[in-house]
Amino acid sequence: MQASVHAAVRELEAERGRAALTVPLVAARAGVTPSTIYRRWGDLQELLSDVAVERLRPDTEPADRGGLRADLTAWAEQFLDEMSSTAGRAYIRDALLGDPDGGNAGQCSAYAAAQVDLVLARAHERGEDGAPAREAIMDHVVAPIMYRILFRPEGLSATYARELVEQTLAGLPG
Amino acid sequence: MQASVHAAVRELEAERGRAALTVPLVAARAGVTPSTIYRRWGDLQELLSDVAVERLRPDTEPADRGGLRADLTAWAEQFLDEMSSTAGRAYIRDALLGDPDGGNAGQCSAYAAAQVDLVLARAHERGEDGAPAREAIMDHVVAPIMYRILFRPEGLSATYARELVEQTLAGLPG
Repeated sequence: MQASVHAAVRELEAERGRAALTVPLVAARAGVTPSTIYRRWGDLQELLSDVAVERLRPDTEPADRGGLRADLTAWAEQFLDEMSSTAGRAYIRDALLGDPDGGNAGQCSAYAAAQVDLVLARAHERGEDGAPAREAIMDHVVAPIMYRILFRPEGLSATYARELVEQTLAGLPG
Repeated sequence: MQASVHAAVRELEAERGRAALTVPLVAARAGVTPSTIYRRWGDLQELLSDVAVERLRPDTEPADRGGLRADLTAWAEQFLDEMSSTAGRAYIRDALLGDPDGGNAGQCSAYAAAQVDLVLARAHERGEDGAPAREAIMDHVVAPIMYRILFRPEGLSATYARELVEQTLAGLPG
């Protein structure tokens, strides 16, 4: 049921655009009753939040560039690129808006933390010393990128992502 | 007109709670027609976003504690305390949600940047060297606090705010 409703949202959004989505329209496409959707999701915004979180799930592991600095830089550049895209911004917004209990926002953050953990585990396997703690990377690489996407969209670039990684590797306590 | 509509929102929210707010209700209290509100704000969410930004405007200058570290620590603790309160979270959420063009989110960030600028100007007047750039404080103190409020609400404390300030003063290029 959830899969067919999520698919209906994606199809209808692609066909008619986000503004045209309504619960009855989604229900008809998914072959369920509107009341089924209201019971499960409460309202359209909560349904869109769940769909957005699905779309924000990373579909690939961070690339292995042979070292922590290179891996973290490549991941941060890709993260900034994806999250600051028009689609990424819309999904982040949807994920936050229809999320009364904060569970979907927490899931977005957990996706990023899991990617960072993979990069750090690889560095550990290589025997690289002095890697920052995951939380330092969340605070000083992930957080500034997400903050600027939401609050100050100008000036987001691959250079900015690289600078955050350099600052975190160079300056911050691990 | 704007002032009376904003006041009507604040009064009705205090009296009946946020969920009870509707454009016709606000219009009646403000003594305007609903169409006036729709023309000016588009919908209730955009009106609530404007009201939230008003409420997020700092009403005092950062306290002068006699030095950059003390001033920045006191300001960061207060910022975290205010933004992570139940009311603060609700205003941040409202400010972001009804904000199609990002202007209100930008205003929230501009309020924080202006407070940071006051702290840095004071340090400059005292002849303190080695103050970080304002953008370093936005990226490594303000952004982590706002990111955790929105995406990972647990673990927000005055200690966390102090640690971010210490890391930024100690570690990061200005």
